[in-house]
Amino acid sequence: MTKHILLMDGPDGPGLIHHVTGVLFRHGLNIIRNDEYVSPDGQFFMRTEFEAGPQQAGIALDSHDPQQILDELRQTLPAGVSLRLNPKQKKNVVVFVTKEHHCLGELLIRYGFDELGADILAVVSNYATLQPLVSKFGIPFHHIAHEGKTREEHEAAVLRTLAIYQPDYLVLAKYMRVLTPDFVAHYNNRIVNIHHSFLPAFVGASPYRQAYERGVKIIGATAHFVNNNLDEGPIIAQDTQEVDHRHTATDMATMGRDVEKIVLSQALKLVFNDRVFIHQNRTIIL
Amino acid sequence: MTKHILLMDGPDGPGLIHHVTGVLFRHGLNIIRNDEYVSPDGQFFMRTEFEAGPQQAGIALDSHDPQQILDELRQTLPAGVSLRLNPKQKKNVVVFVTKEHHCLGELLIRYGFDELGADILAVVSNYATLQPLVSKFGIPFHHIAHEGKTREEHEAAVLRTLAIYQPDYLVLAKYMRVLTPDFVAHYNNRIVNIHHSFLPAFVGASPYRQAYERGVKIIGATAHFVNNNLDEGPIIAQDTQEVDHRHTATDMATMGRDVEKIVLSQALKLVFNDRVFIHQNRTIIL
Amino acid sequence: MTKHILLMDGPDGPGLIHHVTGVLFRHGLNIIRNDEYVSPDGQFFMRTEFEAGPQQAGIALDSHDPQQILDELRQTLPAGVSLRLNPKQKKNVVVFVTKEHHCLGELLIRYGFDELGADILAVVSNYATLQPLVSKFGIPFHHIAHEGKTREEHEAAVLRTLAIYQPDYLVLAKYMRVLTPDFVAHYNNRIVNIHHSFLPAFVGASPYRQAYERGVKIIGATAHFVNNNLDEGPIIAQDTQEVDHRHTATDMATMGRDVEKIVLSQALKLVFNDRVFIHQNRTIIL
Amino acid sequence: MTKHILLMDGPDGPGLIHHVTGVLFRHGLNIIRNDEYVSPDGQFFMRTEFEAGPQQAGIALDSHDPQQILDELRQTLPAGVSLRLNPKQKKNVVVFVTKEHHCLGELLIRYGFDELGADILAVVSNYATLQPLVSKFGIPFHHIAHEGKTREEHEAAVLRTLAIYQPDYLVLAKYMRVLTPDFVAHYNNRIVNIHHSFLPAFVGASPYRQAYERGVKIIGATAHFVNNNLDEGPIIAQDTQEVDHRHTATDMATMGRDVEKIVLSQALKLVFNDRVFIHQNRTIIL
Repeated sequence: MTKHILLMDGPDGPGLIHHVTGVLFRHGLNIIRNDEYVSPDGQFFMRTEFEAGPQQAGIALDSHDPQQILDELRQTLPAGVSLRLNPKQKKNVVVFVTKEHHCLGELLIRYGFDELGADILAVVSNYATLQPLVSKFGIPFHHIAHEGKTREEHEAAVLRTLAIYQPDYLVLAKYMRVLTPDFVAHYNNRIVNIHHSFLPAFVGASPYRQAYERGVKIIGATAHFVNNNLDEGPIIAQDTQEVDHRHTATDMATMGRDVEKIVLSQALKLVFNDRVFIHQNRTIIL
Repeated sequence: MTKHILLMDGPDGPGLIHHVTGVLFRHGLNIIRNDEYVSPDGQFFMRTEFEAGPQQAGIALDSHDPQQILDELRQTLPAGVSLRLNPKQKKNVVVFVTKEHHCLGELLIRYGFDELGADILAVVSNYATLQPLVSKFGIPFHHIAHEGKTREEHEAAVLRTLAIYQPDYLVLAKYMRVLTPDFVAHYNNRIVNIHHSFLPAFVGASPYRQAYERGVKIIGATAHFVNNNLDEGPIIAQDTQEVDHRHTATDMATMGRDVEKIVLSQALKLVFNDRVFIHQNRTIIL
Repeated sequence: MTKHILLMDGPDGPGLIHHVTGVLFRHGLNIIRNDEYVSPDGQFFMRTEFEAGPQQAGIALDSHDPQQILDELRQTLPAGVSLRLNPKQKKNVVVFVTKEHHCLGELLIRYGFDELGADILAVVSNYATLQPLVSKFGIPFHHIAHEGKTREEHEAAVLRTLAIYQPDYLVLAKYMRVLTPDFVAHYNNRIVNIHHSFLPAFVGASPYRQAYERGVKIIGATAHFVNNNLDEGPIIAQDTQEVDHRHTATDMATMGRDVEKIVLSQALKLVFNDRVFIHQNRTIIL
Repeated sequence: MTKHILLMDGPDGPGLIHHVTGVLFRHGLNIIRNDEYVSPDGQFFMRTEFEAGPQQAGIALDSHDPQQILDELRQTLPAGVSLRLNPKQKKNVVVFVTKEHHCLGELLIRYGFDELGADILAVVSNYATLQPLVSKFGIPFHHIAHEGKTREEHEAAVLRTLAIYQPDYLVLAKYMRVLTPDFVAHYNNRIVNIHHSFLPAFVGASPYRQAYERGVKIIGATAHFVNNNLDEGPIIAQDTQEVDHRHTATDMATMGRDVEKIVLSQALKLVFNDRVFIHQNRTIIL
C-alpha cells in the first residue's frame, strides 16, 4: 500500500480536522498518522499520513484521483488554507562546502546508501579542497572561487551553476560565506545551514573561540533555515555536548564536528520528509 | 473557558477521528490539541483537549451535557472502544518510602506549592526515619514496620491504612519492599515506582553496585508502573547521567538520586495529567 | 584517617608537582587524589587530597603540624604560588530568593539532611512569599522589601543583615534583583547565581520568553559566579533540556525549573568542596 | 617541542608520583599534563605528558636518551610497576564489518582525512556488500565468507589474513559474528566492538527489537573491548538517545546507528591516544 502525505496550514477554525478526515473517510482512505498543531496566534498546521484502507487494499489512491481529493478538500475547507498532497518524495539538493569535510562526508555516505532522502546533484565550493572526496562518489564538484570576485559576481556565478540543477534545497554543510539577501531570496525557506554553536549563543565567526573564552561547560550546534539575517533563521534542530576547562577552542571545534554533522543530518531528514512547517521564524515539526 | 479532556482507546477502524471530531464539531466545541497513535498490532489511542469554541465563548461544556456527548460518541463509535471524558483532575495519592528522602522531599515541595497535580493524602513507611520531614508539611505519616510480620501481615496492615484514604495512585518513592501480586492486584496500573537504574539493566537490588562493577559510563533511573514481575512493568520515563571510573558505587548512588527524583516527578506529571495509556506492557504517552 | 586538601595556584614552572609531592612524601603522607591543570597562558592549578599513609595510620596530620607542612611547601615553591591547606570544611551561606521556590526548596531539603556541604544561616528575600517554606526548616527569614527604597538603600539594609551572619558564600537562588558592583565587591568570587538560560544565550530578563520567540529546540540553565557585569561571571555548571514547538514560554519556564535547581545544586557542591578555581573569567574544576 | 607520553600502572605505594616527577625534573623535562587514579583495591594508574622544558627548548628528549629515563624510572620505582614510554603513535588496525555501512563509513572518512589516529590496513567482511565503499578509499577488502565453513575454519582463514597485516587493533564495526575465545586470545585487549545497545541491557541479538518490546524510553550504544564472554568486556564509551512509543524497532535501529558510529569513534580516539587502562573488567580513562 502506498503511503500518502497531506500537508495543510492556515487560520484555525471550527471543524478543520473533521472536514479533512471526512473527505478521506468517504474515499475509504485510512489515516496512519495524524499530527496537528495550533499556534498561540491561531494558525493551524496538520500533517496527515494515509493509505487505502484494508477493505480497498488493492485500490491505489491514484484510482481515487488525487486531484479530485484535493478539490473536495478545497471545497470543504475555508479559503486561506494551504494544502499540499504528496509533495515530491525525493528532493534534489546541491551541497555547499568550503574546506571542512565532516558534514559533507556524512551526507555523501548517507546518499551513497540512499539514506539521505534526497539526491545530491552537485557540490559547490569556494575552494578545491574537497574535490577528491566528492569525486569518490561520482558527483559533480563545482569549484567557484570567490577570490578576485565581488560578492555579487561570485553569487552570480553560483546561481548560474544552480540553474543547471534546479535543486529543491541548498544545504550549507560548513559553507563559510555569508549569502546576500538577493541570493537567499532565490531559495526562500529552501536553504538549510549548520551553525557551529548553540544559537543564539555565539553568532558570527569563530564560535568555538568565543565559547572557549566565555568558559561555557556545554557546546552545541544548530541547523536552521537561512533568511536575510545571518544566523537568525528558523531553527530546525539543535544538540549539545559537554566540555570542561581542559578543552581548548581547537578541542571544542573537533568535538563540535560530531555534533554538527549529526544535527545537520537530523534536520535534513525532517525537512526532506516534509515534516517541517515555518511560522513566525519558528519551525513546527509534525 | 474550561478545558475538557477525552481519552479513547480501542481497536483501530475507519473513520474514528472523523466520528469523534464530528460530535465535537456539532456541539460547537473547539479542539485545542489532538494526539492519536495506532500501535503496530492495530490498537487506536487518542487524547483530545477541547473547549467551547470562540463563537460560544459564554457557554460552558456543562450546558452541552457531557453525558449526552459521551452517549453520542458511544453511538457513533464501534463497540469495544473505551471512552473517558474529563477524568478526575487532581488525583489523590499515598506515597510510600523507606529511609531515603530525596524523592519524597521533591514530591512534598511540589505538593506544598500545588505543582504536583495530585494531593498527597498520606505517607506510608516501614521505617520512622522520614517522619520529621513529612511532619513539616502537615501530612499524616504511617509508620508500618515490617519487622516481626510476615509479608502478608505487613501488606494487610498497609491495605487497612490505604482503605482510610482510597487513593487513586500509590507512588513508591524509594520504597525498598517487594510487593506481592495480591497487593499489586488491588491497584492495577495505579502504582508508580522509581527504579534506581536504567532498566532493564541492573534489575533487583543494589543497582549502583552492579553498575560500578560492570564499569558502565552512564547510569540512569526508570519510573514505571508496577506489575507482578518486579522491575518489569511498563516504563513511563527514563533519564541518564554520565559517570566515569572515578565514581564509586556510593558516588553513583549520590548522583543517581538527582536523576531519580526528576524522572519520578516527570513520570507522575504525565500520569496525573492523563497522558499515559498502557498497552502490551508499553506506555503510549499522548 | 582524616582527609586533607591542599589547593595551589600560581605561575607554572619546572618541578612544581615534584616539590609538593616531596614534602608530603617526607611526612609519610599518602596522596589519595591529585589533579592539576596548566592553562594555555601558563597558570598552574593543583588540588591534592592526602591522608596519613598506612604505615602511620595512627598518626593524624595534626601531629605533623599543618603549619610546618605549609612552611615547608612555601620554602620549596617559587614566590607567587598561592597555597591553601584544609579550607573550612562546611561553608556558611545565606540564600537569596524572590518568589520562586524550586531552587530554595531543593537547597532546604538537602540542608535538612546535611547533604548540602554548607550550613544555611539565613534566607533573605525582597518578598515575604517564601517565609512559610523557610519556617518549616527553622531557618531565619529576612524579608527586606525593596519597594520605597533606592537600590543603594536596599543593598545597605541587606549588607547590615549579612553582617550578622558573616557568610562565606551568598547563593542567589532565583533572586530577581540586579546587584551593584559595590555590593558584589563585598563578596568577590563568593556569590553564586543560577541563571535561567543556557548562557550566553538570552542574557537579561525573561529568558524563556526570549527562547520561545527565537524558537530554540533546547533550553538550559547556568550556575555562575557573579561579577560586575550581569550574567557574565565565570560559569560553574550548565545543563540543557530538549523542547519543541508545542512548548510555550510558560511550559519552558516550568521545565526549566527542574534544570535550574539541579544545576545550582551541582555547582554548589563543586564550590563547597573547594574544587573550583577561577582564572580569566573561566572556572577550572579539579 | 615533541610531546612524550609515559604510561604507568602497578600496586599503589608511597611516593610514586614524587619519584616519577623527580626523574623528569632532573632531566629538565616539563610535565604538560598528568593524570592518575588509584582504584579502591589499591592499583595505581598514571598517564603523564611531558616535553623538554622551556630552558632546554632546543634539546629533544632523544638527546636525553629515553632508555636511560626508563632505566632511572625502573630503579626508583618498586618492582611490579609496569612502564611504557612513548607507545607507537599511530596504530595499525583492521576493521571488521558484515553488511551495515554506517560505522565503516565513519571510520573511512576519518581515516581519509587522517583524523582517526590510526591507519586502516584492511577491511575484513563475511559478506561482499561493503566492498564498493571500501574501494573508494583504496583500502584492501577481504571477503572471507563464513558459509560452508565451520567457525574454526572461518576464523583460521581470518587469522591467515590478519597475519599479513599484523595489526595493533581489530575494530569490529558492526561485525555480526561471535568470536571464539581462541580467536580473542590472539588479540587480548586489542579488539574493540560496538554493541548496539546500552549494555548491559539487551545483550545478544536484536537489541533494538528487545528495546522496542520492553518499551524503553532511551536507547544507546556501547563500545567495549571484547573478551571471552560475549558483550561483557570492559566498557570504553556509551551514549544514549531518547525514543518514544511511536518508534518501531526499525526506527530505533535507524536512530541508533548515529549513536553507534559516534560512540565507536570516540572510544577509538581514546584507545588510539593511549588513554585507556583496563583493570578488573573496567576501563580507567586518563
